[in-house]
Amino acid sequence: MTSQHPADTADVLASKKQAFQIPDGVIYLDGNSLGVLPKHVPARIAQVINEEWGNSLIRAWNTHSWIDLPARTGDRIGKLIGAPAGTVVACDSTSVNVFKVLSAALALRPMRKVILSDNGNFPTDLYVASGLKQLLDKGHKLKVVDPEAVKDAIGEDVAVVMLTQVDYRTGRVHDMADITRAAHEAGALAMWDLAHSAGAIPVDLHGAGADFAVGCGYKYLNGGPGAPAFLYVAPEHQDKVTSPLTGWMGHEAPFAFDLDYRPVSGISRMTVGTPAILALSSLHAALDVFEDVDMADIRRKSVSLSELFIAEVEAKCPQLELASPRDPNARGSQVSFRFKEGYAVMQALIDRGVIGDFRAPDVMRFGFTPLYLSHQDIVDAVEILKDILDTESWNRPEFKTRAKVT
Amino acid sequence: MTSQHPADTADVLASKKQAFQIPDGVIYLDGNSLGVLPKHVPARIAQVINEEWGNSLIRAWNTHSWIDLPARTGDRIGKLIGAPAGTVVACDSTSVNVFKVLSAALALRPMRKVILSDNGNFPTDLYVASGLKQLLDKGHKLKVVDPEAVKDAIGEDVAVVMLTQVDYRTGRVHDMADITRAAHEAGALAMWDLAHSAGAIPVDLHGAGADFAVGCGYKYLNGGPGAPAFLYVAPEHQDKVTSPLTGWMGHEAPFAFDLDYRPVSGISRMTVGTPAILALSSLHAALDVFEDVDMADIRRKSVSLSELFIAEVEAKCPQLELASPRDPNARGSQVSFRFKEGYAVMQALIDRGVIGDFRAPDVMRFGFTPLYLSHQDIVDAVEILKDILDTESWNRPEFKTRAKVT
Repeated sequence: MTSQHPADTADVLASKKQAFQIPDGVIYLDGNSLGVLPKHVPARIAQVINEEWGNSLIRAWNTHSWIDLPARTGDRIGKLIGAPAGTVVACDSTSVNVFKVLSAALALRPMRKVILSDNGNFPTDLYVASGLKQLLDKGHKLKVVDPEAVKDAIGEDVAVVMLTQVDYRTGRVHDMADITRAAHEAGALAMWDLAHSAGAIPVDLHGAGADFAVGCGYKYLNGGPGAPAFLYVAPEHQDKVTSPLTGWMGHEAPFAFDLDYRPVSGISRMTVGTPAILALSSLHAALDVFEDVDMADIRRKSVSLSELFIAEVEAKCPQLELASPRDPNARGSQVSFRFKEGYAVMQALIDRGVIGDFRAPDVMRFGFTPLYLSHQDIVDAVEILKDILDTESWNRPEFKTRAKVT
Repeated sequence: MTSQHPADTADVLASKKQAFQIPDGVIYLDGNSLGVLPKHVPARIAQVINEEWGNSLIRAWNTHSWIDLPARTGDRIGKLIGAPAGTVVACDSTSVNVFKVLSAALALRPMRKVILSDNGNFPTDLYVASGLKQLLDKGHKLKVVDPEAVKDAIGEDVAVVMLTQVDYRTGRVHDMADITRAAHEAGALAMWDLAHSAGAIPVDLHGAGADFAVGCGYKYLNGGPGAPAFLYVAPEHQDKVTSPLTGWMGHEAPFAFDLDYRPVSGISRMTVGTPAILALSSLHAALDVFEDVDMADIRRKSVSLSELFIAEVEAKCPQLELASPRDPNARGSQVSFRFKEGYAVMQALIDRGVIGDFRAPDVMRFGFTPLYLSHQDIVDAVEILKDILDTESWNRPEFKTRAKVT
């Protein structure tokens, strides 16, 4: 595996791979599930732990601006998703943020009772919407349609169109601007989950007129396992929305310790409890790698990697069936293939250092992270996949035993 | 300051101080706000970052049992607060956990509409209760009385008595067993915030018959700034309660990716999003220091330290007025004094290495953490306080300028 694919010589992002700690012998096609460790992050976290926590202790809330870290991290993410300064904050988990933002959105459309989503949404978004609907007990309905049917389903009863832009299984991409426009024309609001978009594809929240968004810090943003998530509220809604989770960090004057809640002006009213400084510091530092990167370059390379992957797999592994859109314009930065024994094949691949993941019932999922993957990696990965399929080396009991986390 | 107080020679916890990184020249009386860094934590976090995240990557969810970390950390905390295995989970922030647990409690008492609390509760608990009440819009009332009036206010309309056991300003302690019994006799449930209790005083949740509890990971548990919080659900309620935040981690089979939510059996149904592994690992590791410690020893030393502090301050600093209960049995592990210029005095103290904190309007707050404080520290701290008061060296503009975080 010392050869080099011709496309890598012209790759403007090639040098970025050096910024990441890729384990020896690993081709990592799972950055859409957990991003790779940027090499500079351990030293930064050590500094936060030893100097900021260890030496400054409680004083660090002021001296190291810990108190502003959710907003500062949010602004860095905002640059990658077309969100102006002061519209994004990093906090809580994606699930908790879905709850907050969906609740805030529904309150802006009190006469409308339908939350419209699709069956390609990540389940937790649907679970949270369903839980919120039951909690509110005001006759809301969660209407879940096929992805292709969303636009036609936006009726006058729809309060919010709640979608994940990139399907977590297939990579299919919704047209954010188009659906947001259709939602607005019908008087509804549009809320986007960017879990598989932020850092993966160019996103223009403000340009698309999106009302709300949430997203994940530990996939393409490489913030570390279980990194804080983020949320976006469009400028025009910020002082109208109320968080259902009225914690002290969203208070106008948290350190006045008043008994009554008064939301602060701006995006910070969507924060709740004390910010998770270690985790936020990791995410904030990880975003350094995006500082000198153009999302258009990331997208160009992402398409090139995924097109190469599909071509190689289809040429060498006819047993597999493409589960992603063939048109790269309709795909995010991942490609999935179906195979009945996909779980076992994926375990065999992981055993040989090619790490992707599996999504029930039969989807083998491969993520393409242009910052730390080369075209040669793709060719090498498919060679190993072909060998596993041709020799049926996946057909072993140890590869068929389901792990707790897939 | 090389002398040693006689009480330190017999201190069975004296050697524990070596387990913590106390900055040179600092006497830290703010462990009730942010606990000190245990010396072994940086190496553990470096291992989690470099080996688990860096090398194992996505595989670590299984190989390093990341997926069980919220429950494993919860069980360690449970040992300090009288909670059986499987009743505590570490997740989210205290504010978010108040929302989840209070919502679950109210659903168990649908015909009762009063949430009873007191004006010594930490404001975020009241904010969250107020936000939940508005969200539910079912005529709930948040009744806030004086701490002494709680027991008499538990009428038949009370669904939940929601209290913080130790008052964050004064250290006053509620009698958990007594109030819980009174709540149950009236048909209400009892929910306790242990933010200033866990790791500070002996707590027996199960023995007291508490129904629900929440608490903080970054104060006396030393989990690091913004560490995950925890929550407790009594065994008899676990399979009856529903979290209002129905995220995928509370699902019976999160990796089946079903479209419908089915809560898992047990405490994990109160979890929501992907666990924050870096932050949880810090909290989990920090709990090592409690492994060979008896909470009764911590309590004995805590009382000894706080009694000494009060005696020294009252002897040397007559300008200050005790704001905490004089009876140690009525106090947690902190002591507060009132002084009109308390903010400036606290800044002058911090400037000289004695770190406590200030709570509006005039409370100087001092926390006693028996694991890393000696009696000599207390004597030395009060000497410095006396000097600042006698010389009025607090009376400088730089000590009067309010910082963002107090």
